[in-house]
Amino acid sequence: MAIRLIYATPATDANLLYWGHFFTTDAFLAFEVEGQRYAVANELEFAAMREQSAFDGVLLPKDLVPEGEPKLINLIAAISERYPDETLLLPKNFPAALLLKIQKAELPYAIVEDEFLPERTAKTAEECDQIREACRVTSLAFERAKMMLSQAEVTNGDLWLDGEYLTSERVRHEIENVCFQNGALAQETIVACGRSAACPHFRGSGRIRANEFIVVDIFPCLRGSGYYGDMTRTFLKGQPTETQKAVYDAVQMVHDRTLEALKVGVNAASIHEKNIALFENLGYETTDNMGFFHATGHGVGLEVHEAPGIGKQHIELKEGMVVTVEPGLYYPDIGGVRIEDVAVIYESSAELLSNFPYDWIL
Amino acid sequence: MAIRLIYATPATDANLLYWGHFFTTDAFLAFEVEGQRYAVANELEFAAMREQSAFDGVLLPKDLVPEGEPKLINLIAAISERYPDETLLLPKNFPAALLLKIQKAELPYAIVEDEFLPERTAKTAEECDQIREACRVTSLAFERAKMMLSQAEVTNGDLWLDGEYLTSERVRHEIENVCFQNGALAQETIVACGRSAACPHFRGSGRIRANEFIVVDIFPCLRGSGYYGDMTRTFLKGQPTETQKAVYDAVQMVHDRTLEALKVGVNAASIHEKNIALFENLGYETTDNMGFFHATGHGVGLEVHEAPGIGKQHIELKEGMVVTVEPGLYYPDIGGVRIEDVAVIYESSAELLSNFPYDWIL
Repeated sequence: MAIRLIYATPATDANLLYWGHFFTTDAFLAFEVEGQRYAVANELEFAAMREQSAFDGVLLPKDLVPEGEPKLINLIAAISERYPDETLLLPKNFPAALLLKIQKAELPYAIVEDEFLPERTAKTAEECDQIREACRVTSLAFERAKMMLSQAEVTNGDLWLDGEYLTSERVRHEIENVCFQNGALAQETIVACGRSAACPHFRGSGRIRANEFIVVDIFPCLRGSGYYGDMTRTFLKGQPTETQKAVYDAVQMVHDRTLEALKVGVNAASIHEKNIALFENLGYETTDNMGFFHATGHGVGLEVHEAPGIGKQHIELKEGMVVTVEPGLYYPDIGGVRIEDVAVIYESSAELLSNFPYDWIL
Repeated sequence: MAIRLIYATPATDANLLYWGHFFTTDAFLAFEVEGQRYAVANELEFAAMREQSAFDGVLLPKDLVPEGEPKLINLIAAISERYPDETLLLPKNFPAALLLKIQKAELPYAIVEDEFLPERTAKTAEECDQIREACRVTSLAFERAKMMLSQAEVTNGDLWLDGEYLTSERVRHEIENVCFQNGALAQETIVACGRSAACPHFRGSGRIRANEFIVVDIFPCLRGSGYYGDMTRTFLKGQPTETQKAVYDAVQMVHDRTLEALKVGVNAASIHEKNIALFENLGYETTDNMGFFHATGHGVGLEVHEAPGIGKQHIELKEGMVVTVEPGLYYPDIGGVRIEDVAVIYESSAELLSNFPYDWIL
């Protein structure tokens, strides 16, 4: 049976958000036992949480500790005592200070080293709808970005739009604005051109140049529900070289092959290994910050990066898992190309939750 | 000397953001020793972090553990071994799973039960500028909200604007839009009217009614720097009763008295106790979810709620501390009134960082 216990704020803890579907700023205690999920709310939050959250029960501290000022550890001890001999299961990110108090009080506990809520990896139809919606908003942002790049003129190799240089910052601003207007929050958006796109996590800055790869990676979170989308497209304004074309085509090929390979029962690591082989067969590096050197993909849900990873770990794909497919190639002298979509795993295939064209020469 | 150690993501950990002034999605290890702050970045983040962060040094895992796959605990052990006999100081929210591994490895450690970075409470002039800017954006949002309420017409007791009922949701949407357009992210904004405003943390929903208090609480975070503003105003569309006027005036009086009392050397608890006495002398309750039943204020910075609290705790106010002043009165049958500003503590007075008029009858 065991008692799963969380102390966190749902604004920063996806497990707690998954339980309660309720946003609040301050941390609170929540636990699950016998399939029922409870929150311990303070007086200020109690009414809102009882009315608006998905918890099966909302308790006040005095419900657990009737006498005196209830410290957190006393509340936890009271929960533990309600279910004698049951272990408190704690997530890896459980606060260390509280763990010390649990140790001192000699309450039975265990840290869950794997996923704390493994049920989160298999998404329900409603969750897929949320992720699809987040990807739809992402597509609207891509339309705007693509239009800006298309309409820009080239002056001495720099892009120029509406009387100003077109910069990463301007495109990012428009992207995040479109997301916000459509109910989603995009942060850390990447609009990286040329050399800076050779580092997969560089957000990009300054003027956008013609004839160079422009990596655009957008991963907005729906403000209502907290579910993420995550898509990347790579563009080029002007004329690509044969090398650039070959790099782009290689990434697109691996992207498409990965989508074809996704289905229930497949080992995620075998997909990733196959992708490494595909790139190596074409002569691309796959180590040491050159070529293809990140995972093929990752789970998406209430976190932008969550289980399951499509990388080195051996994980059997299951029905309803939602993952990104995002092969990429990166070279300091060529720049970077990444193409990323989100797909949900079904019995014999995967279905795209993201949808935006792949034409890239603007 | 000691080694202060953090493992977190700056998007959700204000201490780490304070050290690095650098946003990234994934968690990383950082430590401070001999006044120097270091980050341990993965390959993907290394270049960006070295170029853009405020860390004194950015290391790669292989700098600490040259051989084999560097697990987090091995990195921590390597840091610990560099400074033998020095204690690893960990914040209360340090991940429990890592604490267990530190215990197992028998590394010297201690959890810091007080503020992990007490230096954060005294803000520099640059930090005050950031908070002032966040409050300026907040004021722009208040202007929009106040204009909507002013321009609305009253139909059967409901507010009506531009052919639709004026709802909490509409006003909140406009507020958060204004903030976003001005570089700040407002979340959990409160626009609560009538009975729902009697619960201080209720966000509010549905039609806004005439002749009832409308509590508007906005606390946006600057997207560039992560600093917060936090302001509340209470409005009423129509004609207040004598009771409503008395409640509003009482809150305004306590608000003003608090601002006058703030200066270096004062005990925060004595201010809060005085406020309780002021309200009680006027016949208002100060317990049991009625009247004035929350703290007078709290620190504001990279977190919207941070040290020092202006409440029951005995804390001596120091130069540069930035706090909210937010007395309120709440009654189920009257609704709620709260007036909140942000002030920085100086030697003999406090200076407001927030600025918006207090006229409330619209």
